[in-house]
Amino acid sequence: MPQPASAQFDTGSLPIPAGLSVVWEGTRTALLDRAVGRFTARLAALGGIPAPAPDAPGGGAIPLHIRVGSDPGYLSIAAREQYRLTVDANGIDLVADGPAGVLHGLATLLQLVQAGPQQPSIAYARIDDAPRFAWRGVMIDVSRHFMTIETLKRQIDAMEMVKLDVLHLHLSDGQGFRVESRVFPRLTRVASHGQYYTQDQIRDLVAYAADRGIRIVPEFDTPGHSFALLLAYPELASQAPVPGDRHQVNVAAINPTLEESYRFLRRLYGEMGRLFPDRYFHAGGDEVSPTQWTKNPAIAAFMTQHGFATTQQLQARFTARIQKILQDQGKIMMGWDEVSEAPIPDNVVVEAWRGSKFIASATRAGHPVVVSAGYYLDFLLPASEHYLVDPLDPRASGLAPELAEKLRPKLGAMADALKLDPSATMTPVQDRLVMGGEAPLWTEVVTDEMLDARLWPRSAAIAERFWSPASVRDVRDMYRRLAVVQDELCVTGLQAQANRYRMAARLSPGDAGPVLALADATSPIRNYGHNHLVFHGTKIAPEQRMNTPSDIAAPDSLAAERFDDLAHRYVAGDRSVRPVLETMLTRWRDNDVAFQAVSAGHPILEEARPASQELKALAQAGLDALAGRKDTQWRAATSALLARQDQAVAASANMVVSRAAPQPPADLLQDITPGVRALAGLD
Amino acid sequence: MPQPASAQFDTGSLPIPAGLSVVWEGTRTALLDRAVGRFTARLAALGGIPAPAPDAPGGGAIPLHIRVGSDPGYLSIAAREQYRLTVDANGIDLVADGPAGVLHGLATLLQLVQAGPQQPSIAYARIDDAPRFAWRGVMIDVSRHFMTIETLKRQIDAMEMVKLDVLHLHLSDGQGFRVESRVFPRLTRVASHGQYYTQDQIRDLVAYAADRGIRIVPEFDTPGHSFALLLAYPELASQAPVPGDRHQVNVAAINPTLEESYRFLRRLYGEMGRLFPDRYFHAGGDEVSPTQWTKNPAIAAFMTQHGFATTQQLQARFTARIQKILQDQGKIMMGWDEVSEAPIPDNVVVEAWRGSKFIASATRAGHPVVVSAGYYLDFLLPASEHYLVDPLDPRASGLAPELAEKLRPKLGAMADALKLDPSATMTPVQDRLVMGGEAPLWTEVVTDEMLDARLWPRSAAIAERFWSPASVRDVRDMYRRLAVVQDELCVTGLQAQANRYRMAARLSPGDAGPVLALADATSPIRNYGHNHLVFHGTKIAPEQRMNTPSDIAAPDSLAAERFDDLAHRYVAGDRSVRPVLETMLTRWRDNDVAFQAVSAGHPILEEARPASQELKALAQAGLDALAGRKDTQWRAATSALLARQDQAVAASANMVVSRAAPQPPADLLQDITPGVRALAGLD
Repeated sequence: MPQPASAQFDTGSLPIPAGLSVVWEGTRTALLDRAVGRFTARLAALGGIPAPAPDAPGGGAIPLHIRVGSDPGYLSIAAREQYRLTVDANGIDLVADGPAGVLHGLATLLQLVQAGPQQPSIAYARIDDAPRFAWRGVMIDVSRHFMTIETLKRQIDAMEMVKLDVLHLHLSDGQGFRVESRVFPRLTRVASHGQYYTQDQIRDLVAYAADRGIRIVPEFDTPGHSFALLLAYPELASQAPVPGDRHQVNVAAINPTLEESYRFLRRLYGEMGRLFPDRYFHAGGDEVSPTQWTKNPAIAAFMTQHGFATTQQLQARFTARIQKILQDQGKIMMGWDEVSEAPIPDNVVVEAWRGSKFIASATRAGHPVVVSAGYYLDFLLPASEHYLVDPLDPRASGLAPELAEKLRPKLGAMADALKLDPSATMTPVQDRLVMGGEAPLWTEVVTDEMLDARLWPRSAAIAERFWSPASVRDVRDMYRRLAVVQDELCVTGLQAQANRYRMAARLSPGDAGPVLALADATSPIRNYGHNHLVFHGTKIAPEQRMNTPSDIAAPDSLAAERFDDLAHRYVAGDRSVRPVLETMLTRWRDNDVAFQAVSAGHPILEEARPASQELKALAQAGLDALAGRKDTQWRAATSALLARQDQAVAASANMVVSRAAPQPPADLLQDITPGVRALAGLD
Repeated sequence: MPQPASAQFDTGSLPIPAGLSVVWEGTRTALLDRAVGRFTARLAALGGIPAPAPDAPGGGAIPLHIRVGSDPGYLSIAAREQYRLTVDANGIDLVADGPAGVLHGLATLLQLVQAGPQQPSIAYARIDDAPRFAWRGVMIDVSRHFMTIETLKRQIDAMEMVKLDVLHLHLSDGQGFRVESRVFPRLTRVASHGQYYTQDQIRDLVAYAADRGIRIVPEFDTPGHSFALLLAYPELASQAPVPGDRHQVNVAAINPTLEESYRFLRRLYGEMGRLFPDRYFHAGGDEVSPTQWTKNPAIAAFMTQHGFATTQQLQARFTARIQKILQDQGKIMMGWDEVSEAPIPDNVVVEAWRGSKFIASATRAGHPVVVSAGYYLDFLLPASEHYLVDPLDPRASGLAPELAEKLRPKLGAMADALKLDPSATMTPVQDRLVMGGEAPLWTEVVTDEMLDARLWPRSAAIAERFWSPASVRDVRDMYRRLAVVQDELCVTGLQAQANRYRMAARLSPGDAGPVLALADATSPIRNYGHNHLVFHGTKIAPEQRMNTPSDIAAPDSLAAERFDDLAHRYVAGDRSVRPVLETMLTRWRDNDVAFQAVSAGHPILEEARPASQELKALAQAGLDALAGRKDTQWRAATSALLARQDQAVAASANMVVSRAAPQPPADLLQDITPGVRALAGLD
């Protein structure tokens, strides 16, 4: 995962002994030597062996031939990423046009590793592979919750393993400005609240990512989402910032009518642009609140004077000037899709986020596009939902028009932006402007210790969408592979499982099992329902404890997916899976006894008792179904039980209405519901 | 844990808000500030909150008064470690004579933390505490398997949490010399095999430990266990070292008749003694093979010439000269108990390891003693076995005399050393010479990723033995607290659980659960039975894969201990625990179905199938017993099943005979056996 463009597997496999003998043809570099070093360390981790020496002389060492060209486009959108890999009895042969292809080939090799009795082996294979899209990213918001460098490096390592190549860092927002500035020291002293990366740390992180073929695209959001910056430099504000003002945190905006704002941003972006060598520079541009500007008399006067009827027009002027500043600094400007609402220079890259229709409108206007609509990880949707969104489909993501109209009183102008456009289409020329996609993770309710489990394994499924042919879309097959990939990521360093254990042990020290068992069969409610304060005037939620079972539960219950898979096999006639189904259901049913015991006297866990009971009821229904129970009374009760779960899913099916609807206990959805429904014959 | 010398708990608890206001009285130092920093970080980890600012001004901040003297004995055997701690509605009051007491008081505070719905709290308490012994150590062998600095730091952090104060590092042995030497660079180039700590790393590690009140006592083993050193400097050898010789790895010894040996060791110990500032310096002295010396004609002639009838006398001369060298360098020499077999200077500290009787003999000869007999963690015994060994009991540990005689043909002279002495006694004067104890972990079959789970939680139980009054010895109560402490260590950074998951996921990627469930109910066979090559001429086992279920299983199954506890409560009449017992037993029984599925085609896991079936049979027997089954046939079958488990335990009950006896499948003991026996009424 991601599945290669073309792969043939032969019977047999190549045992991996203590030594590898790397034979270089072409351009051997220190970067590639380090890549081989990582490869052998990961091979050792996956195989449970000491790291094989990469330059073992002859003897039993496996030859690893690497033929690689030197690619001047490495670490750019033009990097040559294709590779050809052959594993057979003679050894391993890897051919690539440049370093990116070597990294990808080594990542693929690791996924071919099989454990063996004495030593691991690599399956025989012939693979010819290249990505569908050049831009395959994740975005991490380090402003709302700060993430340590160590945590970011773990994500970069995992990204390399699944061939993602862009880490977009959202480095400034209302909650904090996260990079040390020497030009504007108050950004560090005042706007970071003590949580920031030093310039040395940034340089180290950029180099760490570059080693792994990953570009870091920085984002410093303006003119909106700039509360922290404006706390430090209030003279640039449209409305005077008040420390601690929960509303302003999200809406404060820079005054675009002041020449000083542009002088400031020219110097700031210059400093930051030198720290982040990538050609792309994300300047934000999202969610500017019109009243920030219209309620400032000077700005209102400026708009009148320039004949601007809308704040979009004012923002377009701002965007054009920022684009010019960045272009002068050798950068290509990116912005969220709001920047495309009024005409701007067409070389500005538009990140389509509010809906897939912006892919069509932005490319129609000639903009290169990066797609994040449909890939928002903070919606806490299961991987399957993102997996089926194609980056070239302009109708893949958005609010149904009738719903958007219904919600207009609540959404205001946002209703138009979110509304699906059934008439949106793409031409081949437009398709070619789509550089790829990004999965954003906004971190209102994601702490540093939660990041690994919120980003993964879903990002691996999305990586496949961005890399593999569009025809690869079998969800069941994806989940089977996803469980394996997630464990491979954990074995090689990801802390997803480790941190989940820590969170559960904190809630129930000495007996974390029942909490984990509940979390393993459930998922948090979706679409910001779990973000308790999102529709209460602010996106920061300092009062919300992020240490509840729903923070431990993952958006994908891989155990429930496996159960669902087995249940459908059983219903299709495969009786061999029955004992395993019974085991799973028995454990879920019986967990409630243990959960009731550990939750006694612990308020956070007591809140989740009804969820544990619901899991018990579902598991019992599954066991009853396996036992052949079919009477009317049972069917009625089971239907009601299943319907209750459907209502809970439906209640959180839409971001706008979610928190208003009644929520299931402890914000938990019961993920074994579909499998139980299948067994009960009620689907 | 360790339980304080005196503790009173009052009803109520102190909520921990966002701020702590530390009020210092007495000597505030940078070291103490860092200790408070660690305390707040751990408090945050345990409480699931952001780290409270330690100098929050007034408001809702909790006052933490620390009154501390300056102790010139800090980081020495004379450190003043006592402290007094009061937690009540007014805040926290900590009084100590020196930094050690502050560290201990903060460690105790962390164990009083209770999770709460919105914020954690600390239980009201009045504690007056001081250790029973000043020397409370663990020993880690980093020669047989190298351990990274990061891994060692994790152990040091955990040691601080349970008030251990000595980390004895076994830094050289046959397999490698692990510290960079600038005086003798071949030790680094040749004898380390590429795995060593740089001098900078050592200085950093020593400082890291010192910050946490922990002294690092280095050991550079001579004259035996010096194969690696002699590979680099063969001119000092008694027998010419042959690279790769499996026998010599353990027995090669320095030639004690050469003046050059003493010149070499004076310079080497001088260099190493400057790196490790502790006054104590461990020079080894164990397991010198007599034939290494007697078969060298020049050494034999030397012995005749000096009238030495035994090699012990020759070693005593060596020991006396090394003691003089170290004394000249300001060090106090330590050695394993072999050094006390012939008269040596009485200020040499003797580490009693082969049996508790050496505590008596060495103190009778006037030596200070550190006790490791009875605390060998590499025996893979459960915590309870070590917990009940008192450091002052000279008959606590050793081979029964009859058994020793029976094994004499196999053991040779070692039979005398291992033999229990029923007449050994201690006087109060001798008692006072016992400085404390150490739990050694030799790492023949312990890799870096296994270290956390092999060292913990057992070291916490042993820490209690070294710290708490001798009267604290309720095993059941110890296990209840141990499970909680282990989770607290994992929440604050220990990787025991995380690495167990990684090992299981490596064996069964995508479905690690069944492997973990088996490992959670079992433990590895004991007393070097799992060390497959120990009695085959070498202690290194390069062919032994250390990634099997028995490497994942812990010496203590905490789940089985909880089960045993509940089973005995049930038998005593408490019927309320029945549902939980049924849940546990059902899960263990049903796990076999899942284990059989994941093990198919995987040789390492297939080997463990019989162990999984045995677990299933035991669990079924427990369920039958709960269901009231009592018929003769069932009793006979259950008795046979239980007897089989007893035989497996008995077969690994003795280190000398262990590998000879038939071993249970996959080297796994079934830890739920006692609980099942209790339920079956067959005990």
